[in-house]
Amino acid sequence: MSNPISNRQPAIILVSPQMGENIGATARVMANFGLKDLRIINPRDGWPNDKADTMSAGAFEWGVEAKVFDTLEAGLADLTYVLATTARPRGMEKPVFNAEEGIGALMSRPDVGVGVMFGAEKAGLLNEDVALADGILTYPVDRSFSSLNLAQAVGVFAHSWAARTLEGEAKKEFAGVGDSADREQLVRMFEHFEDELDRAGFFFPAEKRPVMTQNLRNAFIRAQWTNQEVQTFRGAVKALALGRGKARIDRKD
Amino acid sequence: MSNPISNRQPAIILVSPQMGENIGATARVMANFGLKDLRIINPRDGWPNDKADTMSAGAFEWGVEAKVFDTLEAGLADLTYVLATTARPRGMEKPVFNAEEGIGALMSRPDVGVGVMFGAEKAGLLNEDVALADGILTYPVDRSFSSLNLAQAVGVFAHSWAARTLEGEAKKEFAGVGDSADREQLVRMFEHFEDELDRAGFFFPAEKRPVMTQNLRNAFIRAQWTNQEVQTFRGAVKALALGRGKARIDRKD
Repeated sequence: MSNPISNRQPAIILVSPQMGENIGATARVMANFGLKDLRIINPRDGWPNDKADTMSAGAFEWGVEAKVFDTLEAGLADLTYVLATTARPRGMEKPVFNAEEGIGALMSRPDVGVGVMFGAEKAGLLNEDVALADGILTYPVDRSFSSLNLAQAVGVFAHSWAARTLEGEAKKEFAGVGDSADREQLVRMFEHFEDELDRAGFFFPAEKRPVMTQNLRNAFIRAQWTNQEVQTFRGAVKALALGRGKARIDRKD
Repeated sequence: MSNPISNRQPAIILVSPQMGENIGATARVMANFGLKDLRIINPRDGWPNDKADTMSAGAFEWGVEAKVFDTLEAGLADLTYVLATTARPRGMEKPVFNAEEGIGALMSRPDVGVGVMFGAEKAGLLNEDVALADGILTYPVDRSFSSLNLAQAVGVFAHSWAARTLEGEAKKEFAGVGDSADREQLVRMFEHFEDELDRAGFFFPAEKRPVMTQNLRNAFIRAQWTNQEVQTFRGAVKALALGRGKARIDRKD
């Protein structure tokens, strides 16, 4: 799509969150990954919340829009497809997605409102909350330490969402750093290097030359040098050969 | 592999972290996703740190092992392949990975020590730190709000790692919840339902029956019912048909 952030971004729905810090940290990581629709259901400490504001690092000013609802039903009213995050099975017959698959499910419904519910810090979502969802989103947590911080749980989802929607942009920033040497440049460098090594008497005994050459080429090719780096190394080889010069002189015969 | 957590887990390397809270939150999310090797380079507030302990939610007792080093070089000494996380290009010629690709690069070196460096809260890694890395790990952040919380940055990596190593385990927990109806059960249910609708005179005019039937089947098939749910619905259809019964009597002819 031309706009990397769809108009149909998933809503992030925090159900009865307790700590303002976690709401703020949620807003921050939403902004990091380009998400704006935050719905807060029945926050324990009310809203607005100073601690949320501090932890948000400016995410609300950036564009995260927080709406508060008294009930989950009200918060979900305009959504058509909703996932519930949980680390434990609920004995309900719903599809179970990992992050990548869940985002696939959300993106396969581009023309409707979609969202993801996250439960409160202590106990997560109630079964009655999960019952309102179309599917379950779960992460591959270690079973012996499975309780994620609320904002971390949102962060994992938000990153996975951005991996599908912002990825192209992210990589573009890093493009064009180098001017990687092509094989011709590399082969010329190898030949120059090997030629000087020949002159220095490095390849001894002579029948070992092929395998020694191959080992050297393997070692250098992994470095994936730029043209500039190739030129620098060739300069170094030249300087070594000229500067010390003994081998060249010795081998004048 | 038989053990879902490789002996060659990546080390998480925090370079000059400032806030104990972030070190603790890092340990917590590492434990969530089964990672144990935490290396702390030159922590601003020393070590151990009470705030780190509080925020870790027991991760150190669980098994995250924190080692402290004075210099980055010392912390990397036993590692062979290391990635550096950064949100901005550094003008260095190194491969640039997203989370999934970076983990692929780490996992392609199963027999050596590997790790990922994360910079301090304010400015991230120094260029001289990045220069010690084999590759760059970057996330698809929104360019206008690109500064992730330190523990969130670790969390995104740790989740992506677990998605490759713990995934099978995670899904297994959710397996066997339901007893999904196969097509034979569904078709029997459709036929029962449609038969009762026939008797009730629902399909009118008669030539619309095929398209009406198809619409109904489409609506029901999306629900992906279990055998139990199929039986429940067939019971409901039966009850409706018997209870009211008028249509059946009307159509005795």
